[in-house]
Amino acid sequence: MIYKQSLLTALLLLLFSVAHGQFDLNHQTNNLFIKPQVRQQILIPDISGYKTLKGDFHIHTIFSDGSVWPNVRVEEAWREGLDVIAITDHLEYQPHKDYTVSDHNTAYQLAQRKAEEMNVILVKGTEITKGEVPPGHFNALFIDDANPIENKDASLSIEAAVKQGAFIIWNHPGWKRQQPDTTKWWDYYTTLKSKNMLHGIEVANSNEWYPVALDWCIDKELTVFGNSDIHAPINLKYDLSNRHAHRPITLIFARDKSMQSVKEALFEGRTIAWYGNIIAGKESLLSELVSASIELKTAFRETKKKGNTWCYAELNNTSDIPFVLQDKDGNEIVLKPLSSVIVKFDKKTAALNYKVMNAFIGSERRLEINIPSL
Amino acid sequence: MIYKQSLLTALLLLLFSVAHGQFDLNHQTNNLFIKPQVRQQILIPDISGYKTLKGDFHIHTIFSDGSVWPNVRVEEAWREGLDVIAITDHLEYQPHKDYTVSDHNTAYQLAQRKAEEMNVILVKGTEITKGEVPPGHFNALFIDDANPIENKDASLSIEAAVKQGAFIIWNHPGWKRQQPDTTKWWDYYTTLKSKNMLHGIEVANSNEWYPVALDWCIDKELTVFGNSDIHAPINLKYDLSNRHAHRPITLIFARDKSMQSVKEALFEGRTIAWYGNIIAGKESLLSELVSASIELKTAFRETKKKGNTWCYAELNNTSDIPFVLQDKDGNEIVLKPLSSVIVKFDKKTAALNYKVMNAFIGSERRLEINIPSL
Amino acid sequence: MIYKQSLLTALLLLLFSVAHGQFDLNHQTNNLFIKPQVRQQILIPDISGYKTLKGDFHIHTIFSDGSVWPNVRVEEAWREGLDVIAITDHLEYQPHKDYTVSDHNTAYQLAQRKAEEMNVILVKGTEITKGEVPPGHFNALFIDDANPIENKDASLSIEAAVKQGAFIIWNHPGWKRQQPDTTKWWDYYTTLKSKNMLHGIEVANSNEWYPVALDWCIDKELTVFGNSDIHAPINLKYDLSNRHAHRPITLIFARDKSMQSVKEALFEGRTIAWYGNIIAGKESLLSELVSASIELKTAFRETKKKGNTWCYAELNNTSDIPFVLQDKDGNEIVLKPLSSVIVKFDKKTAALNYKVMNAFIGSERRLEINIPSL
Amino acid sequence: MIYKQSLLTALLLLLFSVAHGQFDLNHQTNNLFIKPQVRQQILIPDISGYKTLKGDFHIHTIFSDGSVWPNVRVEEAWREGLDVIAITDHLEYQPHKDYTVSDHNTAYQLAQRKAEEMNVILVKGTEITKGEVPPGHFNALFIDDANPIENKDASLSIEAAVKQGAFIIWNHPGWKRQQPDTTKWWDYYTTLKSKNMLHGIEVANSNEWYPVALDWCIDKELTVFGNSDIHAPINLKYDLSNRHAHRPITLIFARDKSMQSVKEALFEGRTIAWYGNIIAGKESLLSELVSASIELKTAFRETKKKGNTWCYAELNNTSDIPFVLQDKDGNEIVLKPLSSVIVKFDKKTAALNYKVMNAFIGSERRLEINIPSL
Repeated sequence: MIYKQSLLTALLLLLFSVAHGQFDLNHQTNNLFIKPQVRQQILIPDISGYKTLKGDFHIHTIFSDGSVWPNVRVEEAWREGLDVIAITDHLEYQPHKDYTVSDHNTAYQLAQRKAEEMNVILVKGTEITKGEVPPGHFNALFIDDANPIENKDASLSIEAAVKQGAFIIWNHPGWKRQQPDTTKWWDYYTTLKSKNMLHGIEVANSNEWYPVALDWCIDKELTVFGNSDIHAPINLKYDLSNRHAHRPITLIFARDKSMQSVKEALFEGRTIAWYGNIIAGKESLLSELVSASIELKTAFRETKKKGNTWCYAELNNTSDIPFVLQDKDGNEIVLKPLSSVIVKFDKKTAALNYKVMNAFIGSERRLEINIPSL
Repeated sequence: MIYKQSLLTALLLLLFSVAHGQFDLNHQTNNLFIKPQVRQQILIPDISGYKTLKGDFHIHTIFSDGSVWPNVRVEEAWREGLDVIAITDHLEYQPHKDYTVSDHNTAYQLAQRKAEEMNVILVKGTEITKGEVPPGHFNALFIDDANPIENKDASLSIEAAVKQGAFIIWNHPGWKRQQPDTTKWWDYYTTLKSKNMLHGIEVANSNEWYPVALDWCIDKELTVFGNSDIHAPINLKYDLSNRHAHRPITLIFARDKSMQSVKEALFEGRTIAWYGNIIAGKESLLSELVSASIELKTAFRETKKKGNTWCYAELNNTSDIPFVLQDKDGNEIVLKPLSSVIVKFDKKTAALNYKVMNAFIGSERRLEINIPSL
Repeated sequence: MIYKQSLLTALLLLLFSVAHGQFDLNHQTNNLFIKPQVRQQILIPDISGYKTLKGDFHIHTIFSDGSVWPNVRVEEAWREGLDVIAITDHLEYQPHKDYTVSDHNTAYQLAQRKAEEMNVILVKGTEITKGEVPPGHFNALFIDDANPIENKDASLSIEAAVKQGAFIIWNHPGWKRQQPDTTKWWDYYTTLKSKNMLHGIEVANSNEWYPVALDWCIDKELTVFGNSDIHAPINLKYDLSNRHAHRPITLIFARDKSMQSVKEALFEGRTIAWYGNIIAGKESLLSELVSASIELKTAFRETKKKGNTWCYAELNNTSDIPFVLQDKDGNEIVLKPLSSVIVKFDKKTAALNYKVMNAFIGSERRLEINIPSL
Repeated sequence: MIYKQSLLTALLLLLFSVAHGQFDLNHQTNNLFIKPQVRQQILIPDISGYKTLKGDFHIHTIFSDGSVWPNVRVEEAWREGLDVIAITDHLEYQPHKDYTVSDHNTAYQLAQRKAEEMNVILVKGTEITKGEVPPGHFNALFIDDANPIENKDASLSIEAAVKQGAFIIWNHPGWKRQQPDTTKWWDYYTTLKSKNMLHGIEVANSNEWYPVALDWCIDKELTVFGNSDIHAPINLKYDLSNRHAHRPITLIFARDKSMQSVKEALFEGRTIAWYGNIIAGKESLLSELVSASIELKTAFRETKKKGNTWCYAELNNTSDIPFVLQDKDGNEIVLKPLSSVIVKFDKKTAALNYKVMNAFIGSERRLEINIPSL
């Protein structure tokens, strides 16, 4: 009996141990603090027939002044749920060059394989790095060859990139090292724009953003960007342990997940910058995105008061972006990601109006939305 | 003009300061560690034309041996994303009765208003509490009046409940205080079942579960439950800080979110128990749920090797339930909630087969699934 | 051999399974989301020969308008690392009284046993609840019997408490329901104070604080308090998942952990209010506490520049309170709990001066400290 | 007019921003998800007159097959609270060499400056990398020059290192790529040891550990190590968001925080490996460490039962290491870091005995401790 039992148990537990890796004196795995290699999905709805892609178009590696090998940038982006990135090492600033053998295309080449394996779109780019403003720093995206772009003269450098069909971004226009007091627009940029040599601006870069730059984008029809400009390993700078934490991201509204569609979207200005808990961009796009993210369900309850009928319903946030909603009396609702609250509305109007405090459509303008009841 | 402008600005800043709590010497708000009052959405797909509701059918309040006021149970459930709960205070065990004025319906009455306001379905229930097994403890759900159900004789008590159309659950069959050595099925339950006086079993209760009880449910066509049997405030027992953490939950597949549909679903056995990272229930339901939760996207890349074509694609988990997938070679993939991994499959078969290690369709049987490529 | 092995394995795995709860078909434990019942230590240094105790002197239960059974308040406090609490149910506001059998001492009696078992000092208290200000709400602590304190007339009620040797706190003086526009001091309180019928003020209550009230405490020598005024289960209102999160706490500097020493400390004004990331109180106490919490280690490195010798050393925060340190140039250091940063100081002075931005010694005054190098 | 307007707004916003650091249209900082640059203190008591240092002696950079620039390793270690690290790039495996200009000392040289600035002891090391076992992989620590150590012959390579006074570790002896079935000790290592060319073994490496290797260390007096063997950025492999999470660490008991004392401690075998929630090493050291970490406070309460007097007291864990304590009846206490529980002991014995389930003093032996009451 005992014997049978023990054998039985042996078998049972053995099977179990094979299946689950129990106590083996030769080898034990210990995954307690290990991160599984998974990609987190960032849930943001598609809008107006476009896919909502997530991108970061300003990233460095050890081949300029960054501190990680190029393929790490792909791995980081994949895990965080990004669809597209551009590695944009400095042409002019190469502090590691005594220890590296490379030209300005090397970082791209070393990351390309990983990008194919992980289905991350890797845009070939570079950063034209001229100290003072103007000219300042520019990212050139969708280039063929970074080497001929290097040039003492900023304008000639940009021109060389544009010849390759590049999309040009003015980086961190309000960086205090370049514009310590006021974030100014200079004639230099008016000229670039007039020659179709300037297409976008970083409204947000790293842990900074520049409200006036948002006005420029809207007034001058330039594409808005929120980029990380990451140099360190991403998790050394950002605490991404909470699923709703994220680096500065540029949301791209593209026909599909392809290089060509991303390029088209950028040139057509179909982007929103998402940094911290703020989204910023064109009123039309923000309005669509917020309307697609928030739904006012059908009322589950009614009460009557002084001839009015009040409806109670769930207000759902189906996205990973939080929304701070302010009603006309100044009361605020914090609608966390993938969460809902219960709201009250008048049966006659059957809708709610809010100012979205974390959605900027201008340096001082917040998006206002009307949400009809389903 | 100036005056108007300054007023305007004043107003703007005032709103701003009101909205954002600026420095007012009279009054400051400090929400640093405050939880906003929001409902978290638990993302689990609907299956086979039914809505997937989340429920907990075993809950106590201060009106038996619990430690919170009844409406707290509604608030907790709403925040956690539950759709339906039953308060099931003990008929026979009333340690607080020297300090309370109540009958067996009081807890329900005190929670009902809150349930209506928060759109949580509150099932009227009670726990028939007989120490030893058999008979043990039973929950009677969907009753009209708990008072006449109290009876020294367990069978008469159950009978009184069934007369009211009650659904009867055998609670925690493997609780060591009642069955210390082996979790046994007794003739007593065969008799109950034959008289249609037993409809479900708690496969999971609190931090325990009973594999053999899952076999009973499947063999004898009883409804599976995963319930919390919570007595303390929920957050004192469970660490729910991570959005994927949850109390033991019973998933109900119902026509709609209504009392009637929940009752129908329970009587028809359309449930799955979800406790910790384990789901347990009928093979057909688990198979549908997992298939609806995991999607194998179209291949984004192909490689050829020895005449074989290998396709690479994302395997997405669109639900808040994690899945541990084991292939035929014993390799395991941990597919976290709302995440994806990259997998490889043969172009010929264009599908993947896994044993789902955390999906039990029997005490020792795991669900096996085939996932075709989109 | 095989047989011996399997028996051996059986034994080994059996032992293992006994020790670690492996797969038993009858009973499985599943503690994945369960909170262990432990007390977190709040690490804050003792100062000037006193023990630093952590207290909350404003707490409700179901015996007024709270929502938990009294002993839950002890369990919550113990887990959070508190040493002393007072349950202070309203004398005048008893919304649950149709469902409860109690007098004003019942909550205390029901929590006392648990307090003894968990070594938490339970101060007998009550809340005198008069709507408008003045008189407003008062907590009476260290009373013998709450029943005779109930009285239509606020002053007579306070007087009855003081006859019992009570310590009297004016609660939430800036609560907008009582003082919507300005947080005012009224003659009423001058009179109370003159009759030794007012001893302390809540500078912080729940998620509010009142900068002017801190000035009153300092000018009029009243004891400062930071209390939770908790009604719900604590974790339903506060997110305490991070070890540095906490409810509003009153730090008490007492001879030892005893009722008598706490009473003495309160009457002698030896307290600091700690709410969110802010500490507030008398300059002398804050200065001692911060100096005891922050240490500037001996320099590990020196550099010379223009005849100056710069020393580099670790600045350690040995407490669970974070400190935001601003130097004379306005640069800020965030010194997280149980963390350190590297700072630079001139070898001649061998010390650093900071304004502690989150340490208030007046409505608008921050603590300034000088930290000498070890 | 316009000009006046903007001036007015500027003024108002300026005042506003001065008062509250609020809205500046030129520049906003947004630190929501940013990690402050701080060093976390790992709280572990010193023992027997030695300082308890935390180290990791197996680390890679881009100068072998790692993916970060050398100084990143110092920054990571400093933030995690480590005191000493060794960068140990492979001599024989240099996949990046087409893109780098370096010899085997370059990584050390590039990290040294940062190590001085951050007060992290940087041990010069290298990894001798021979595929099969024996010989396998070895780390040579405290070397002067890595270049002459490179040699086709493993023994000559080790010999060259030892000539420089190196400390030699046998790395990951149970790595399945090298010992797939059984983790074996070979004569090769007996010979090395006899020639004083082997001083320590990695009991834990990355997410693996090898129970038998612990027995070897104890029987043959070799120093135990728990090392990360990190190649990726540390946070890409480990989830360190919880303060008690950590990479595999080697605890060193050294006279002081200096290179010389660390070297002495390693040669004298004064280490403990700490990986996941497990500590492993010599019984004497584990016994001292656990006794110094856990204190049984004086009883705060007594009860009498059948002539016995039971004392109740707090059992405190003053360290960042959790302990799982099992009493003679098999009951387990989880004593989390910086936490306490209440325990009961007999007044006669005035002590408690536990088996520490997560403290290994042999492949299958757990530490047993006796904790006297204070």
